[in-house]
Amino acid sequence: MEGELAHIGAGLAAIGSGAAAIGVGNVAGNFLAGALRNPSAAAGQTATLFIGIAFAEALGIFAFLVSLLLMFAV
Amino acid sequence: MEGELAHIGAGLAAIGSGAAAIGVGNVAGNFLAGALRNPSAAAGQTATLFIGIAFAEALGIFAFLVSLLLMFAV
Amino acid sequence: MEGELAHIGAGLAAIGSGAAAIGVGNVAGNFLAGALRNPSAAAGQTATLFIGIAFAEALGIFAFLVSLLLMFAV
Repeated sequence: MEGELAHIGAGLAAIGSGAAAIGVGNVAGNFLAGALRNPSAAAGQTATLFIGIAFAEALGIFAFLVSLLLMFAV
Repeated sequence: MEGELAHIGAGLAAIGSGAAAIGVGNVAGNFLAGALRNPSAAAGQTATLFIGIAFAEALGIFAFLVSLLLMFAV
Repeated sequence: MEGELAHIGAGLAAIGSGAAAIGVGNVAGNFLAGALRNPSAAAGQTATLFIGIAFAEALGIFAFLVSLLLMFAV
């Protein structure tokens, strides 16, 4: 059996990257549900939509970064 | 099989980082759902939105910090 | 294979830190959903919001503390 333990870690970190997508989907999904019920208010909440996506996406990108570091840097 | 066990731990910690994104998404998603139903009240709850995001994001950054510590400090 | 099994434990503990963020997000998200439906009552429930966030956050910080102890104290 060969290979590095870091590669198991990289695979596990990718689970975190996928889990973050649940949060991002929750933000965008609720925006769409509300925007389609009340389209006239949607334009005013676009900034909040991107703020919410950015914060949730950041945590997923951190997990992806850990994955890349485990494969190529450690 | 080579490598350090800490690298598996770093990957596991990244799952925690991604899981925190679910919490962040929950906060921002509920804000958007409410703000699109009642846009006039949205401005008054922006502070609460950022408080909620900050507390949830902090736990995700703690998990990312554990990940970095396991890769580069221990 | 080198390293300590405690480092795998530290990574597992960090998952708990991230999972606590789901609870924090649930508290803040439901506060926002209610506050935007009935803004005049929101100010009276701010104390409850912070109590809920504090208790959920505490558990995440306990998990982070376990992670730090496993890395640096045991």
